[in-house]
Amino acid sequence: MSEKEAQEMLLELKEKAELMVDLAYSSIIYNNKELAEEVYELENLVDELNEELKKLAVKDAIKGELDVNEALAIIQLGDCSEAIADAASEIADVELREIELHPIIKESVLESDEVLIKVTVSPGSILVNKKLGEIKLASHTGMWIIAIKRGEKWIYNIDKNTIIKENDILFVRGTREGMEHFIKIAEGKEKEI
Amino acid sequence: MSEKEAQEMLLELKEKAELMVDLAYSSIIYNNKELAEEVYELENLVDELNEELKKLAVKDAIKGELDVNEALAIIQLGDCSEAIADAASEIADVELREIELHPIIKESVLESDEVLIKVTVSPGSILVNKKLGEIKLASHTGMWIIAIKRGEKWIYNIDKNTIIKENDILFVRGTREGMEHFIKIAEGKEKEI
Repeated sequence: MSEKEAQEMLLELKEKAELMVDLAYSSIIYNNKELAEEVYELENLVDELNEELKKLAVKDAIKGELDVNEALAIIQLGDCSEAIADAASEIADVELREIELHPIIKESVLESDEVLIKVTVSPGSILVNKKLGEIKLASHTGMWIIAIKRGEKWIYNIDKNTIIKENDILFVRGTREGMEHFIKIAEGKEKEI
Repeated sequence: MSEKEAQEMLLELKEKAELMVDLAYSSIIYNNKELAEEVYELENLVDELNEELKKLAVKDAIKGELDVNEALAIIQLGDCSEAIADAASEIADVELREIELHPIIKESVLESDEVLIKVTVSPGSILVNKKLGEIKLASHTGMWIIAIKRGEKWIYNIDKNTIIKENDILFVRGTREGMEHFIKIAEGKEKEI
């Protein structure tokens, strides 16, 4: 069913656009060009997805599976995600142009109730070799992993099946309150999630 | 110091823009025009904040407190938040134009790992009369309150000093895993956070 496809595509677009915003701000805070470049990669993907989604919406309208207003609403929602993705690329662009921001500006992003942190998983951490779905990290700590750097490799499509390894560098979004507890867990100083 | 002001303004812009995206999607999922209208209100605020931020960046550059590239980077970051805010308004616009989306499209947003839920606080809930900072709701449950409807009143500037009252309708963003536990807490069926 193409309805199902449109639904999945719209969800993927929304999630990718929001991931891009997180990665873009992380790239600035941590002076990390690789994250900024990933934002650019994702932008291409988002553009392609949105093109497909719009074609599908019109085709479904022709087939009578969607009425005209529904098709237009889907197109509008897809374009909104693309606009958010474009804004994220512009944020990443600040990092890629090698502009060193005033530390005070970077701190402002970190001073929010919602924080972005970078932490390395020590070999003694209880996170090692755990599957995210199994430990329910996000709901127990209020912290979400948005990206993992493992050696030279980057992992962005984090889900419940993602397994954490020792020495993983985690880029994590979450609450200011949850931050310290999370860091202790990753560093192996706290043994309960 | 105007540096401090620029920092605070940039943070406020970023947070408001992200809140607008959450509220806009909530407005669609819950067919809630008031949320969509709040997004429009916030858009005006974001536009004003960004105008002020840009003036300040240029003034600071003239005074020599920021170099040219730094000032331009701040302007770019402000404009990105405004672009995200504009996209959120376009999302809210789908709700305001009274287009009834296919239920399957709404569900797609709810099927994400990150969910948006609406729940009423029952008089027997342990949340009643608690200050958010005190119970560390977000870090213990992985769920963030983005808006509260209290009688006829809406509360959008949720922070650690916000107190939850009985019969509050909470609009909450968080993990799929944390959702059920949170609903039980709000409904008074679960007495531990």
